[in-house]
Amino acid sequence: MVGMSGAYGGHSNGGESRAPKEAVVVRAPKEAVVVGAPPSEMEMAGAMGVVHKVAAQPAQSTASKMKGKVKETFFPDDPFRSFKGQPLRAQWVLAARYLFPVLEWLPGYSLSLFKSDLVAGLTIASLAIPQGISYAKLANLPPIIGLYSSFVPPLVYAVLGSSRDLAVGPVSIASLIMGSMLRQAVSPSAEPMLFLQLAFTSTFFAGLVQASLGILRLGFIIDFLSKATLVGFMAGAAIIVSLQQLKALLGIVHFTTQMGIVPVMASVFQHTNETMLMGACFLVLLLAARHVSIRWPKFFWISACAPLASVIVSTLLVFLFKAQNHGISIIGSLKCGLNRPSWDKLLFDPTYLGLTMKTGLVTGIISLTEGVAVGRTFASLKDYQVDGNKEMMAIGLMNIVGSCTSCYVTTGAFSRSAVNHNAGCKTAMSNVVMALTVMVTLLFLMPLFVYTPNVVLGAIIIAAVIGLIDLPAAYNIWKMDKMDFLVCLCAFAGVIFISVQEGLAIAVGISIFRVLMQITRPRMMIQGNIKGTDIYRNLHQYKEAQRVPGFLILTIEAPINFANTNYLNERTKRWIEDESSSGNKQTELRVVILDLSAVPAIDTSGIAFLIDLKKSIEKHGLELVLVNPTGEVMEKIQRANDAHNHFRPDCLYLTTGEAIASLSGFAKMATP
Amino acid sequence: MVGMSGAYGGHSNGGESRAPKEAVVVRAPKEAVVVGAPPSEMEMAGAMGVVHKVAAQPAQSTASKMKGKVKETFFPDDPFRSFKGQPLRAQWVLAARYLFPVLEWLPGYSLSLFKSDLVAGLTIASLAIPQGISYAKLANLPPIIGLYSSFVPPLVYAVLGSSRDLAVGPVSIASLIMGSMLRQAVSPSAEPMLFLQLAFTSTFFAGLVQASLGILRLGFIIDFLSKATLVGFMAGAAIIVSLQQLKALLGIVHFTTQMGIVPVMASVFQHTNETMLMGACFLVLLLAARHVSIRWPKFFWISACAPLASVIVSTLLVFLFKAQNHGISIIGSLKCGLNRPSWDKLLFDPTYLGLTMKTGLVTGIISLTEGVAVGRTFASLKDYQVDGNKEMMAIGLMNIVGSCTSCYVTTGAFSRSAVNHNAGCKTAMSNVVMALTVMVTLLFLMPLFVYTPNVVLGAIIIAAVIGLIDLPAAYNIWKMDKMDFLVCLCAFAGVIFISVQEGLAIAVGISIFRVLMQITRPRMMIQGNIKGTDIYRNLHQYKEAQRVPGFLILTIEAPINFANTNYLNERTKRWIEDESSSGNKQTELRVVILDLSAVPAIDTSGIAFLIDLKKSIEKHGLELVLVNPTGEVMEKIQRANDAHNHFRPDCLYLTTGEAIASLSGFAKMATP
Repeated sequence: MVGMSGAYGGHSNGGESRAPKEAVVVRAPKEAVVVGAPPSEMEMAGAMGVVHKVAAQPAQSTASKMKGKVKETFFPDDPFRSFKGQPLRAQWVLAARYLFPVLEWLPGYSLSLFKSDLVAGLTIASLAIPQGISYAKLANLPPIIGLYSSFVPPLVYAVLGSSRDLAVGPVSIASLIMGSMLRQAVSPSAEPMLFLQLAFTSTFFAGLVQASLGILRLGFIIDFLSKATLVGFMAGAAIIVSLQQLKALLGIVHFTTQMGIVPVMASVFQHTNETMLMGACFLVLLLAARHVSIRWPKFFWISACAPLASVIVSTLLVFLFKAQNHGISIIGSLKCGLNRPSWDKLLFDPTYLGLTMKTGLVTGIISLTEGVAVGRTFASLKDYQVDGNKEMMAIGLMNIVGSCTSCYVTTGAFSRSAVNHNAGCKTAMSNVVMALTVMVTLLFLMPLFVYTPNVVLGAIIIAAVIGLIDLPAAYNIWKMDKMDFLVCLCAFAGVIFISVQEGLAIAVGISIFRVLMQITRPRMMIQGNIKGTDIYRNLHQYKEAQRVPGFLILTIEAPINFANTNYLNERTKRWIEDESSSGNKQTELRVVILDLSAVPAIDTSGIAFLIDLKKSIEKHGLELVLVNPTGEVMEKIQRANDAHNHFRPDCLYLTTGEAIASLSGFAKMATP
Repeated sequence: MVGMSGAYGGHSNGGESRAPKEAVVVRAPKEAVVVGAPPSEMEMAGAMGVVHKVAAQPAQSTASKMKGKVKETFFPDDPFRSFKGQPLRAQWVLAARYLFPVLEWLPGYSLSLFKSDLVAGLTIASLAIPQGISYAKLANLPPIIGLYSSFVPPLVYAVLGSSRDLAVGPVSIASLIMGSMLRQAVSPSAEPMLFLQLAFTSTFFAGLVQASLGILRLGFIIDFLSKATLVGFMAGAAIIVSLQQLKALLGIVHFTTQMGIVPVMASVFQHTNETMLMGACFLVLLLAARHVSIRWPKFFWISACAPLASVIVSTLLVFLFKAQNHGISIIGSLKCGLNRPSWDKLLFDPTYLGLTMKTGLVTGIISLTEGVAVGRTFASLKDYQVDGNKEMMAIGLMNIVGSCTSCYVTTGAFSRSAVNHNAGCKTAMSNVVMALTVMVTLLFLMPLFVYTPNVVLGAIIIAAVIGLIDLPAAYNIWKMDKMDFLVCLCAFAGVIFISVQEGLAIAVGISIFRVLMQITRPRMMIQGNIKGTDIYRNLHQYKEAQRVPGFLILTIEAPINFANTNYLNERTKRWIEDESSSGNKQTELRVVILDLSAVPAIDTSGIAFLIDLKKSIEKHGLELVLVNPTGEVMEKIQRANDAHNHFRPDCLYLTTGEAIASLSGFAKMATP
C-alpha cells in the first residue's frame, strides 16, 4: 500500500494537467482517423499519460470476510455498538434497556406525558372494544376472546415494544386467515371447544415464529412481502372479509362458508331480510364518519368514536324495541371476568399439529408484517428508530403470553395506531390505558353487550376493512412500475379467486421470480463519450453521447453469476459480431471495453465467462479490457490470475477514459 | 433532444478548459476549509461551472418496453435477425435450415469430411456399444435397450442438432436417476415389463419437457444449475454409481437396492468372491488407459478402444475357460434385430402418471443440462455457435422419438463427445456412422455378447464415471469462492447421503438463495476522491482515495427493491448518524451524495425509500443528491416527480465530481 501511494505521490504535480490532455485525446482518434492525419505529439503524450492502477481490496482472511458478511446479514443495525467501551455496570443498564424498552421512557415519565397518553388510550379503547368483539367473530371465536386479546397483549407490548405509536390488539386480516384456515379442518359451531384450542395453539406457534425470526435475526424474511404484494393482498382480503360480513349485515342465517366470490354472491342474492335496514344505516354512518376524518384530520375522533357510538345506539335501539324478537340476531349474554389461563388448552396432538403450525406460520408472518410496517411508518413520521428484530421479539412474546391467557393472534393494527398517533399518544402508556379500560369493561360492563346486534359488528368490520383497499397506492404502483402492478394484481386475484394463503404465496413467488429475472437477463449497455468531457454514458439514455470509433464500450449492470453467464456470453458475442460486420476499415472495431463498475459480485462461472470471452475476442484479433472492477470482482480476477495470468495489469483500467487514452495509440498504430 | 445537444454545443469551446477547473475545485474545499481561506475566484467559477444534465431515457410506451423485455428474455440471441430484409423464397430456405440444421452442412458435404467423420464415428461406436449395454443395466433395463438407444436417437440428432461434436447416446447420470426413481415404485426384477413401460413413458415426458423448454424459449431455466452445483452433483452421483457397480464387480448376488453410502458399504463387506479378481484387473486396465489418454491427448484412442477391447477379451476368456460355470455372471442371450416400436407401451395410467412425469422432469433437465453444456463447450473450442433453445428442441424430439422406438433417455455425453472431438469429427455425420455400426451390431453381432461377463460392464461404468469426479474444478471453486464451494459440497453431500433428486434440489435452492441474499444485503460503499483526479472510488478498496470533507459519498451496488429498502434505509441512516456525531465543526457533514451508477433498476418500494431518505436527511439539515441514475431509475424518478416534485433537477448530477464542484460552494457558504 505504501508503494502504491508512493506511485501516486510521484504524479501529484501532473494531476492538474492530466485531464485536458485526455479530454483532447478522447475525441482525437475519430478526427485523426477521418482526416488520416498522423497522431500529434499531444495525443501521443496523452496516450502515454498517467494511468491509474486498479487496486485490489486489502487482503482479508476467509474467516474475517465471513464474519463481515454474517454481520451485515444478521446485524445490519449493529445493535450493540452503544455497548462498546462502556464500563460493565453501564453495559448492564444498556442491556436491560435493550431488552425492556419500557425502562428507557418510564424513569423520565411525567404527568404531562400521561395526560396525552390518557386521551389517546381512551380513544383507542373506544375503538378496541367494538373491534375486538367484531374481529373475534370474524375468526369464528367467541366475542369475549376479542376483548381478552385487547387486555393482556397490550400490557406485554408496553413493556417490550419499542414503538411509541403502535396500538396493539386483534386485526382483521389475521383474524380472517386464522378463521378460514382452521375452519377447513374443524367446524367452529360443531366443535367450538376444539376450535378454540386450535386457535390458541396456532397463536402460540405464531408467537414462536415471530419471536424466532427476531431472535435469529431473520427479520429480512418479511421484507419479501413487497408493498405491491401487500396492497393487492390487503384489498383482496378486505373484499373477502366484507363479503363474509354481508351475512351479519343482511341477517342471513344459512350462509355459505366458502371463501370464493361466486358462492358468496350467490348466497347473498338468495336472501333478503329486515336486518338489512339497520345494517345499511350504521354502515353509512360509519363510512361517513370515516370520510369526515380522512377529509379533516383534526376530526379523527369522529371516526374513532363512531364504532362505540354505533354499538351503544344500536344496543339501546334493540333493547328499547325488543328487536331481538323481530329477527335481529344479538350477541347474547357474556360472562364477566378477566382472562382465564389457557396454557392447558394448547393442543400438540399430532392430528392437528400440521394445521396449527401452518396456521401459526401464515398468521404469524402476516401479522408481523403489519405490526413492523406500522411501527416503522409512525417511527419515521416522528423521526425515531424502531428496531425490526426487537419488535419481532416483542410481538412474538406478546402472542406466546397471549396464547396462555385466552388470547388469539394480535399485532399493531394500522387503523388503531393511526388513531393513537392522531390522538397525541407519547409513549406505549396509551396501550396500558387502553388495556385498563378493557379490563374495566371485562369486569363490569359485559352485561351491557347482551343486546348488541350482530349486524352492527358486521358494519364495523366492513367500515374498518374498506380502509385496506388502497386505490391511490394501486394507481401509483401502476404508474411507476407495470410489473409491480402485475404482482399486486396477482395477489389480489389470488386472494379473491383461490384462497388467502395461496394468493399470498403466488404474489411472493412472482416478486422473487422477478428479482431472479433481473439477474438472469441483466441490462447490458453500449456507452459513448459525452462530447467535450471525460464522461462515458449509455448511448440510449444520453443522445449527446457518441461512439468512440474502434472501441466497443459495454456495461453490465448485475452480478455476473451462473444464472446469467450464458446470456452475457451470447449477447456480447452478438454485439461484437454486429460491430465487426458493420464497420468499414477506418472505424473497424479493435478494442472491447467491459465496464465492470456496476458489477457488485462475480462467482466462478462469471470468472470462467470473462476468461472465455477474452480468449474468444482475442481469437478474432481484438482486445478485451476491463474497467473499474469493484473490490470483490478484482479479488476473484487476481485469484484467477494466480493460476493462469489471464488478466495482466495492462488490460485492467480504472476509468474508461484512461483505457481509451492509453489504447487509442495502440489502436491507431495497428491501422495499416 | 435537439435542445439538449444545443446546450452542449454552446459549451463545446469551453470543454477543454472545464476539466482542470473542476479538478482544482474537487480538492480545493478541503484545503480551503482547513486553512479557513475564503473561496478563490477560480473555485467559485468551478462551483458555478458547467454541470451536465441527467438525461432520461427517450420516452417509450409500456407496450414497446414490454416487447423489448420479452425479446431480451426469450430471444436474447435474436434467432430471426438473418431473416430480415430477405425475399420470401430465401426466408423459406432459411427457415428450413433453421429447423433442420442438417441442411446447412449436407449440401456441401465432401468425401474428405466423410473420411474424418468415418474414423470418429467408428471410434465412438466402439465406446457406445459397451457403454450402452452397461448404462442400460445401470438403469435396471435390459442391456439391449442401451443399444437401441444408441441407434435411433443419434440419427434423429444428426438431422435436428446444431452441434458438430456431440456424440449422442445413453449417459450414466440420467440412467442412474431413472433407475433409482422408478425402482422406488416398481421392482425391475418382479415386474420387468411394467418397469420398461415406465421407463419409456418417463423418456417420453423427459423429451416433452426438453422440447417444451426449447419451444417456449425457457432454456435459461437450466442456467440455474451452476457449475458448482454440477461439480458437486456429478461427483456425488459418480460415487453412488461406482458403489452400486461394486455389486457386479465383486460378484455379489444379493446386493442392497438402497442408494445411501452406509447400506452399500455394509453390503460390500458382507461378501467377497472370485469374480473380484477379473473385475479388479479390467478396472485397472481401463483406468490405466484413461490415464494415458489424459496425459498424452494424442493417444485418446487408447481409452476410446479400451472398453470394447475389454469386452472382447473378457468374453473370450469366459468362453474359453467356461468361467460362467465358476460363478462369473454373464449377460446371456440377446435377440438379434432392430428397435421395435414402443408407442403402444407408453403408460398414461393415473397410478404411475405422477411418478413418470417427475422422473421425466428430473432426468430430462439433468440430461438437457449435460447435452447443452457439452455442445457449448465444444462449439466454443471450434468457435462456432450452438443455439441453446434449438438444441433443446433437438434433444427433446430425439427423446420423444426414442420413447416410441424402445429407447430410454439419451443426450450428448461428455466423455464420448470428447472422444468424437479428438478423433477429428467434422459434422453430425459421425453420429450417423456410429448409429449404423450399432445397427450392424444389433442385426448380426448380438450372439457374441452372450458370454460377456457383467463384471466387465461394471468396470466400464466405474472407469467412465470416475471421470465425473472433477477434483481440480472443486479445488478451483474452493480457491475462487467459498460460498460456491459450499453449494458444491451441499450438492455432493445431498446426493450421497440423501438422494439424487433432493441433493440436486438443495444445491439449486442454495444457489438461488445466495443470489437473493446478494439483493437483500447489497454492498454499500463510501467513496473518496483519488488525489489529483476527478475520480471517486471505494475508500476500502483504494487506500489512496480520500474523504471529501463535508460530503458523504455512498454507492449502492444492486437494484433497489422491496427486498432491500429496509436494509438500505437502516444502513444509510446509521452511516449518516456516525458521520454527524464524529465530525467537528470544520468538517461537519453537509451533503449526502448517493451514487446510483450501479443501480440497474428500482421498484415502487425503492422510490419510496429514496423519497423517505430525502425527507429524513433534510430534517437533519443536510442535503441529498443523486448521481448518475441509469435510464430505468431516472424514468421512475421522473414519474415520482410528476406527482410531487421530490427530486428537482438541482439534486441530480451526472458525476460525483460535478456534484461536489457545484455543491462545495453551497457547503462552504453554509459554514458560519
